[in-house]
Amino acid sequence: MARYEVFVTYKQGIFDPPGATAERALRNLGYEGVESVKIGKYIRIETAGGIETVREMCEKLLANPVIEDYRIEQVGEA
Amino acid sequence: MARYEVFVTYKQGIFDPPGATAERALRNLGYEGVESVKIGKYIRIETAGGIETVREMCEKLLANPVIEDYRIEQVGEA
Repeated sequence: MARYEVFVTYKQGIFDPPGATAERALRNLGYEGVESVKIGKYIRIETAGGIETVREMCEKLLANPVIEDYRIEQVGEA
Repeated sequence: MARYEVFVTYKQGIFDPPGATAERALRNLGYEGVESVKIGKYIRIETAGGIETVREMCEKLLANPVIEDYRIEQVGEA
């Protein structure tokens, strides 16, 4: 059993609605030094499969490869 | 200008609906080795503020401290 972390982010140039909303809201709260906020997904998986299997899961379900990038890191054996 | 990464996750014992849905969907796709899937937020911020300011942003807007934990890492100067 291995543990993985997956970071899913919008591809460069793709509009990030939750990030844009948070950015505006933070400025409205008075945080004027905020330059940019991007919001993606942070996924933790425990599985018997290897990193190639996790890559397949990303392509099929966990990310949308048309508009999102993802990065996988193995973080240990569970 | 500093860059931070924030990882927002449900607190232990709090139900994680997107994680539970992904876990079930992966098993239905045939990934029977999947033991657990947790889905949180991965936030990247560029701001003139320090890490204490980012912690404030988390408490006020980026996380829900009642049900979520968050971890902040400074990843560089932009």
